Amino acid sequence: MSNAPVVLLSHEMLSPMAGGLEAQGYRVARRWALEPEAAGNVRAIVHAGEIPLEPAFLASLPRLGLIACVSVGYDGVDVPWCRARGVEVTHARGLNADDVADHAMGLLIAGWRNIVAGDQLIREGRWTATGRVGARPGLKGRRLGVMGLGHIGAAVARRAEAFGMVVGWWGPRAKPEAPWPQAESLLALAQASDVLVIASRADAANRGAVSAQVIEAVGPRGMIVNVARGSILDEDALIAALKDKRLGRAALDVFWEEPTPAARWAEVPNLVMTPHSAAQTLDSLPLMVAQAHENLRLFFAGQPPLSPAP
Amino acid sequence: MSNAPVVLLSHEMLSPMAGGLEAQGYRVARRWALEPEAAGNVRAIVHAGEIPLEPAFLASLPRLGLIACVSVGYDGVDVPWCRARGVEVTHARGLNADDVADHAMGLLIAGWRNIVAGDQLIREGRWTATGRVGARPGLKGRRLGVMGLGHIGAAVARRAEAFGMVVGWWGPRAKPEAPWPQAESLLALAQASDVLVIASRADAANRGAVSAQVIEAVGPRGMIVNVARGSILDEDALIAALKDKRLGRAALDVFWEEPTPAARWAEVPNLVMTPHSAAQTLDSLPLMVAQAHENLRLFFAGQPPLSPAP
Repeated sequence: MSNAPVVLLSHEMLSPMAGGLEAQGYRVARRWALEPEAAGNVRAIVHAGEIPLEPAFLASLPRLGLIACVSVGYDGVDVPWCRARGVEVTHARGLNADDVADHAMGLLIAGWRNIVAGDQLIREGRWTATGRVGARPGLKGRRLGVMGLGHIGAAVARRAEAFGMVVGWWGPRAKPEAPWPQAESLLALAQASDVLVIASRADAANRGAVSAQVIEAVGPRGMIVNVARGSILDEDALIAALKDKRLGRAALDVFWEEPTPAARWAEVPNLVMTPHSAAQTLDSLPLMVAQAHENLRLFFAGQPPLSPAP
Repeated sequence: MSNAPVVLLSHEMLSPMAGGLEAQGYRVARRWALEPEAAGNVRAIVHAGEIPLEPAFLASLPRLGLIACVSVGYDGVDVPWCRARGVEVTHARGLNADDVADHAMGLLIAGWRNIVAGDQLIREGRWTATGRVGARPGLKGRRLGVMGLGHIGAAVARRAEAFGMVVGWWGPRAKPEAPWPQAESLLALAQASDVLVIASRADAANRGAVSAQVIEAVGPRGMIVNVARGSILDEDALIAALKDKRLGRAALDVFWEEPTPAARWAEVPNLVMTPHSAAQTLDSLPLMVAQAHENLRLFFAGQPPLSPAP
């Protein structure tokens, strides 16, 4: 065992992977219990891509050659910095678009049609003969704006069409094959949308792109759904707009800080939240883990990775 | 005004309709404040069809000729009894299928993907680095069983197909034009379904049809969604099955008793509830009210109704 390559789990949430890695013959180290001599032997990191991996920490691992993200996203990793130092970065490619799109539609309807609020109303004994929850507009004919028409965005658009929603989108690149019209800008998309769904890959260029101005363009009768990354959305501006009714409602699966503190949301109305669970299904998780395993195997066999980060 | 026909509102929840009826020239009486001499003049009742209208009460209204349900359902009214006594019954026809189907899919996803549970987990500060909500199966490839393939059932089926669900259905009549296979019985449908959605019109024949046996056939990994009427589902059996984990999860918009008491559900796990709000949208409510108005107008003009109860 002492000659087995050392693979480091970057975060406690990845603990359940230890057994599978050991079964493949790796020695497993844990960042939250990492001893200095073990650091010198780490060859690969198994990582959840949304968590920041600081360059200073990576620089302390002299034999590191691979960061295998179990996730689709890898925004916590500075890929150019890593590659310049000979460290490859891989991710889970296109596996969970259906699951994330399902969750996005669930958040959209749960928020739009007061499902979470209705559940709470009944449980608190506030359903009375005259006091149901207020009637809401239906979804049919409402305009859905998709920010980022990748696998996930397109999967959301296809589902929304089955509800009679009218789809538009915006992204930084033209997609001549897309069956839906591309807005001229994110702001133009927000102005033309009843519901804006954020489905972009997070990168430096779209940090805070859903700004106070974009949020206000969605407006008091509109809704924002984020299943991408917290960094894309100005969370402080969102909170202020919901409180002031300059934005109608929101549903968030992702946050600036995860886990997000409960106190931050205590006084924010018309909001549904889930704990970054859009991609967490029993169907997609094993496939994502298997892909990380395959990237590790190829790395230690000296072969090119299956799914390098683009 | 004293010669204007008297229209009776059957329930407080219909109070908001009084102004519109008075604007049409009717005198409005209220059942919850009905004086004996007014009862003698009631020509028509404006009614929410799910609420029982007892024959003894109807018999106390000698000039009654019409019960105009603002709702699609009219299960609280004994239609043959009424017609045998010369009282016509009308309802809102096929107006809200899209809204109810939207809500059914919202309940399905909110329950299946732990959206309500996830929201509560965050708000109670229970989201920790290692403790997200448990991963769930995705929807793609899961089998949806629709009980009652009317306007609403078909609209649910079309939406579910956009999520990659595999659709089957059962109803008491064959529908050769239906694009989905009909099960041999309700029990066979339940056995073959991951999610059973109840979308039937309630009548005497299907009272309690989703019985303890049908509920167990859906099983510990399955889910039941009810957007039809509480009477179709054995609610006591559902509660027992959820508590014993013989049924995986449920989402209910309708109940035996409405409003349903909060205490009844306090210890029932894996359940999402909404207060009979599936059809309550700003798009469908005005159309339903307008249809009731038109049925009243035709009745007082001595013409056949627009939408008699089938």
